[in-house]
Amino acid sequence: MRAITLPEFGGPEALVPAEVEAPAAGPGELLIDVVTAGVNRADVLQRQGHYRVPEGGSPLPGLEVSGTVAALGEEVTGWSVGDPVCALLTGGGYAEQVAVPAGQVLPVPTGIDVRDAAALPEVACTVWSNVFLTANLQPGEVLLVHGGSSGIGTMAIQLGREVGAHVVVTAGTPEKLAFCAELGAEVGINYREEDFVEQVRVATEGHGADVILDSIGAKYLARNVETLAVNGRMVVIGLQGGTKAELNIGQLLAKRAAIIGTTLRARPAAEKATIVAAVREHVWPLVEDGRVRPIIHERFPLDRAADAHRLMEESSHIGKILLDVR
Amino acid sequence: MRAITLPEFGGPEALVPAEVEAPAAGPGELLIDVVTAGVNRADVLQRQGHYRVPEGGSPLPGLEVSGTVAALGEEVTGWSVGDPVCALLTGGGYAEQVAVPAGQVLPVPTGIDVRDAAALPEVACTVWSNVFLTANLQPGEVLLVHGGSSGIGTMAIQLGREVGAHVVVTAGTPEKLAFCAELGAEVGINYREEDFVEQVRVATEGHGADVILDSIGAKYLARNVETLAVNGRMVVIGLQGGTKAELNIGQLLAKRAAIIGTTLRARPAAEKATIVAAVREHVWPLVEDGRVRPIIHERFPLDRAADAHRLMEESSHIGKILLDVR
Repeated sequence: MRAITLPEFGGPEALVPAEVEAPAAGPGELLIDVVTAGVNRADVLQRQGHYRVPEGGSPLPGLEVSGTVAALGEEVTGWSVGDPVCALLTGGGYAEQVAVPAGQVLPVPTGIDVRDAAALPEVACTVWSNVFLTANLQPGEVLLVHGGSSGIGTMAIQLGREVGAHVVVTAGTPEKLAFCAELGAEVGINYREEDFVEQVRVATEGHGADVILDSIGAKYLARNVETLAVNGRMVVIGLQGGTKAELNIGQLLAKRAAIIGTTLRARPAAEKATIVAAVREHVWPLVEDGRVRPIIHERFPLDRAADAHRLMEESSHIGKILLDVR
Repeated sequence: MRAITLPEFGGPEALVPAEVEAPAAGPGELLIDVVTAGVNRADVLQRQGHYRVPEGGSPLPGLEVSGTVAALGEEVTGWSVGDPVCALLTGGGYAEQVAVPAGQVLPVPTGIDVRDAAALPEVACTVWSNVFLTANLQPGEVLLVHGGSSGIGTMAIQLGREVGAHVVVTAGTPEKLAFCAELGAEVGINYREEDFVEQVRVATEGHGADVILDSIGAKYLARNVETLAVNGRMVVIGLQGGTKAELNIGQLLAKRAAIIGTTLRARPAAEKATIVAAVREHVWPLVEDGRVRPIIHERFPLDRAADAHRLMEESSHIGKILLDVR
């Protein structure tokens, strides 16, 4: 089958289209004929050699796909060949076929084109697991989303709005902030021009952020802690701004606040299945009602995966970047 | 009434016995005739000027007492004058009488002398709220308790053991470690001679600590993070080793771990009442069955509060230090 391989780490050109052996569905797995693959920042880190593939994961990049069921492994029930599906992967999505544990597979939501459904699994699972299962965002609370125009950001805004939270976002351009506002962000902060600590303080009348979803890491650590409300929870899911920084533990104690680090990809299949089941229960109905939608910036043919990565590295996109596989 | 006042911050001699006006029970409060007051490290910090008294709290030191009900404020039900009680306070315990919200009052457990019951509220509420309500310690998990021979430590060992966790402690002398072992600690680490990171790794066969209860703060931050298991939760409740330290957020992400800072004293009365109710439900039956007991190191008459503080600052004690008020 056709796939994007990664013979050596490097720049976007390190992504090399090639013919590789197709996977088979092992026990408990589904084989999917991939229609579309989602591009994620973790794929860029993997290409650069900064993201170790979890044990047992495919060495090919690609953490989510949509497509149709091609075959069922032993012990798989509840799915039929030809079903339109999307799935959360541990790798291997940039390919014509991928095998995935059945617990990580979701039906394509009613009303969503199978070609667009690849935009959903990673962002829905990331936001639901972190903002709701881990940080337990409640109605009326303040949710601060850094990078509100990213794929994850656009989903966090929509889901935060749906549960009745007050969503505050940071982004780097007026266009991105305007889009976030359309999605439901009540406050937009241009991080290039404004201090988000001060802006959140003013916007919340001194309350601060009850929950922060952050993929910056070190660079924002001190300011995030300063921005947290009493009993605040900060979830760090990425390290775009570095890995090490000084923590003021005294401030954390005074606020009775929590810092939680997490990644979706490295979780064992059983935890992923729990998250996927929660997403199907809580997020899918909102998508099928048209209240929450996939936000797609641009699509590339599979063989142009390198161009897709170049675009992601420019960070000018709003929402998801997809690869059309067939 | 007789009380220990703090006219100026300073050493133990800053604690001055004096006659002060007795408090009255406001609406929703009980007035307690104090028999015994517990001494806590937070009292030492307050005496030194390092611990701001929460708004509305008594300026007198003392965070827990035992005694008998002297009067009921308006709207208080379920208690009668003369009932033997102990209570979690926001301050004012080093005194012949103290007023406290009814939600922070507990009956003296059956089988426990009222004079000893003052050793229970702070440690039981601190350990239950942090290790169980916040960090959600589960049977079979590894609990690392720093300062296992402190009042909090001795309660954490006993409660950890009772839920079927594997308790590992650090302490500074062989005598302290031997006492922790008697209480149920499976592994004891002399922090003056051994590296707790390495010792926990060996003792848990590489698993690490699922929950860490820490009152050291900065000095232990990096090593605590290193010691955490995957999905580990570290609760910092004190800053004896400083407030600021470098955090490796990458390590936190790789472990999907949480750092939670918290203090009991500053919580609003409603949160304290929730914790006290949980302690009454979950901890009190264990005390009444004789499975969990107050560990008392030494008692001083109220007027010798300064000596009690000197002893606490030496850190040679095992368990609680108490002040006999009447």
